[in-house]
Amino acid sequence: MSNPEPFLLINFKTYLESTGKRAVDLSKKIEAVGESTGVKVGVAPQFCDIEQVAANVAIPVFAQHIDSVAPGASTGHVVAESVKAAGADGTLINHSERPLQLFSIDKAVELAKQAGLTSVVCAGTARLAAAVALSEPDIVAIEPPELIGTGRAVSKENPEIVTESVKRIRRVNSSVAILCGAGISTGDDVYAALKLGTNGILVASGVVKAPKPEEVIASFCEAVLKII
Amino acid sequence: MSNPEPFLLINFKTYLESTGKRAVDLSKKIEAVGESTGVKVGVAPQFCDIEQVAANVAIPVFAQHIDSVAPGASTGHVVAESVKAAGADGTLINHSERPLQLFSIDKAVELAKQAGLTSVVCAGTARLAAAVALSEPDIVAIEPPELIGTGRAVSKENPEIVTESVKRIRRVNSSVAILCGAGISTGDDVYAALKLGTNGILVASGVVKAPKPEEVIASFCEAVLKII
Amino acid sequence: MSNPEPFLLINFKTYLESTGKRAVDLSKKIEAVGESTGVKVGVAPQFCDIEQVAANVAIPVFAQHIDSVAPGASTGHVVAESVKAAGADGTLINHSERPLQLFSIDKAVELAKQAGLTSVVCAGTARLAAAVALSEPDIVAIEPPELIGTGRAVSKENPEIVTESVKRIRRVNSSVAILCGAGISTGDDVYAALKLGTNGILVASGVVKAPKPEEVIASFCEAVLKII
Amino acid sequence: MSNPEPFLLINFKTYLESTGKRAVDLSKKIEAVGESTGVKVGVAPQFCDIEQVAANVAIPVFAQHIDSVAPGASTGHVVAESVKAAGADGTLINHSERPLQLFSIDKAVELAKQAGLTSVVCAGTARLAAAVALSEPDIVAIEPPELIGTGRAVSKENPEIVTESVKRIRRVNSSVAILCGAGISTGDDVYAALKLGTNGILVASGVVKAPKPEEVIASFCEAVLKII
Repeated sequence: MSNPEPFLLINFKTYLESTGKRAVDLSKKIEAVGESTGVKVGVAPQFCDIEQVAANVAIPVFAQHIDSVAPGASTGHVVAESVKAAGADGTLINHSERPLQLFSIDKAVELAKQAGLTSVVCAGTARLAAAVALSEPDIVAIEPPELIGTGRAVSKENPEIVTESVKRIRRVNSSVAILCGAGISTGDDVYAALKLGTNGILVASGVVKAPKPEEVIASFCEAVLKII
Repeated sequence: MSNPEPFLLINFKTYLESTGKRAVDLSKKIEAVGESTGVKVGVAPQFCDIEQVAANVAIPVFAQHIDSVAPGASTGHVVAESVKAAGADGTLINHSERPLQLFSIDKAVELAKQAGLTSVVCAGTARLAAAVALSEPDIVAIEPPELIGTGRAVSKENPEIVTESVKRIRRVNSSVAILCGAGISTGDDVYAALKLGTNGILVASGVVKAPKPEEVIASFCEAVLKII
Repeated sequence: MSNPEPFLLINFKTYLESTGKRAVDLSKKIEAVGESTGVKVGVAPQFCDIEQVAANVAIPVFAQHIDSVAPGASTGHVVAESVKAAGADGTLINHSERPLQLFSIDKAVELAKQAGLTSVVCAGTARLAAAVALSEPDIVAIEPPELIGTGRAVSKENPEIVTESVKRIRRVNSSVAILCGAGISTGDDVYAALKLGTNGILVASGVVKAPKPEEVIASFCEAVLKII
Repeated sequence: MSNPEPFLLINFKTYLESTGKRAVDLSKKIEAVGESTGVKVGVAPQFCDIEQVAANVAIPVFAQHIDSVAPGASTGHVVAESVKAAGADGTLINHSERPLQLFSIDKAVELAKQAGLTSVVCAGTARLAAAVALSEPDIVAIEPPELIGTGRAVSKENPEIVTESVKRIRRVNSSVAILCGAGISTGDDVYAALKLGTNGILVASGVVKAPKPEEVIASFCEAVLKII
């Protein structure tokens, strides 16, 4: 994925504002802005909403997590094949709110690959971003947990962690795409993130909890267009 | 739920045979047998399949697990509200393949109740069956882990654990419905389970991995009709 | 353990104030007060300190946790036999800072019994206190997590949870000893706890972090003597 | 630690053969062979045995695990400071029988460093060995879980994983020492391990469960002497 086009990925978490029908509605709004601006956007709804979201929009749909187990006798787990069958294109792995054992991260990337899912592995520090890049996922997302949900954007509060992550990732993996996240809430935050050498952003509350999510996404897309 | 009608609950686990469209197909077959015999049947598909299954059948649909967290900033978790919004009627909790901390079992029962979901809490021994009955779920399912997936039915291999569970549960909870499971694969197994004082069975591979699941379910339903 | 003598158990947690040589010193101070007042006191130091503490005092020594595994190929785990061999008399199980799966609580009680260790199972609510009492440990300790470390004593802030716990435990287990804990820091708190029908208290920061722990323990012991 | 002298580290796991007094006895035997041959040997007893082992031998003593938490209100956890106070020189981290979340591995290495403990981080594949090397521990131990306890030595059954690990680790960390383990039981296995470019071995059942552990260690030490 060398020189991938900028990508804005919206994580729906388990917010009520993005559950059930509202997950579908929000996805449609996000898709509309993506289409009108030509900027690549994607959504990560809850497991139960993947099927309906994927049936209603053409933008990439991601699961928020997969377990590192193959299909079989594992009640209550989320296997890559199930996520894929529901229409997802990819999955987050190791989000700081759903951290995995080291071995399981590596295994989950492999299982995602086998199932044809794009893998986005999250990491909270520059060093860990490089560590997960060794598993050769499609995308690494750097998100310092201490800034998540704060509205203080990683790309402006702590630009060093982003540049350091990019540097350390590139030492061990020349092709993985890089997102950054945590606290992103304005077009300026997105612009700063791209300027720091990332390929886009991962965002949740900044969009989902906004009074008018479509306006936030529109400001994000405008920021992307200023760069490309 | 005093004197509830017998109930057969089929856990789809993460078997490929019951993933995606095959989850919907299998659910329809199970519903058809339930309708033709008048026996109450239900299914527990994977999270991603709940919406489509619930949209296609009228029988009770259960999630295989919920997390003991309220909606909010919890990426990759399964909240009761999401399961409910997708159309589920209930949820398994603490299956031996997805065991929870004691506190989380109690919390999950409460969250299920608040979301309007029927809760089925699993336990592997008679003593633990009584312990979880104290949380006042709708249903307790007794499943000795050592018999799960073996084809050797708990109701015939270890009837004592079933009667002992019923006895211990009734000491602390007079109204909770009681299922038993593990190794159930024939109508005789179901008949034995009901004779032991349970209100039905929880079954997975015995149905899902059968060459003709509808025939297995039919034999289960016949066994129920012999009793009621 | 019907009508057991009142018992004050001091949990050293991983505080630096109670690590290494300081664990031994603190244990000696606690023992001295116990001896001079005739009140039964015990300590729960860290794993690495059990041997030295047990070699230097005659009061009961408890581990803070055991894993629910038998001795064998389990690197980094804490087995009951190891705790016992180091000189411990008992162990905490399921402290809210080291919560266990329901099955593991029951298994750990059994493993403690086999190794000759007194088991103290913690629970955070009245309902869960009854649930763990079903596993027939020697002692149940009721500790509402929200009061732990606050200095606001459970026995005065929330006496209802204590009386309700005692009531619910007694319905299912007539002989288990009952401690309460969380926020205990004065003799009055201890007096209130005993008046509510408990057999003693579990305390940590109220003693360990006190400028003069021996004075706090002395006030606790005086409260006990007012009752018996 | 460039060009470190060969090191043989014996993991006592939770075997009864290496619990309590037997941990001290076994450590003395291992020390005696180390002294007579001049080969560097170390032991990793259970937490409760660290103090007595360290008081009785002069060879390096390792904990089998530390938690990634600082001292404080964390009942039942193992903090680096406690392990250090008991006399340990280092600690294993992320053994396959006590796997950690990625973030916790990195944090545990940092906490070990702050407490003055030598850190040995385990990994089960070449890729993961490189990933943990990025956290800059003192030692990386490569142990394929599928060979642990089998008596089939990694250095002979799967030499590729060892050479591949060394290669991948060196790409990202030029100075970390490298051990390999799993199935090591003869001097030949040790010789092969050193020839593959490692700095020694991590072994458990091959020594602990041997009828005469001192003879096994002696054969290991002879193998080391053939190389240096």
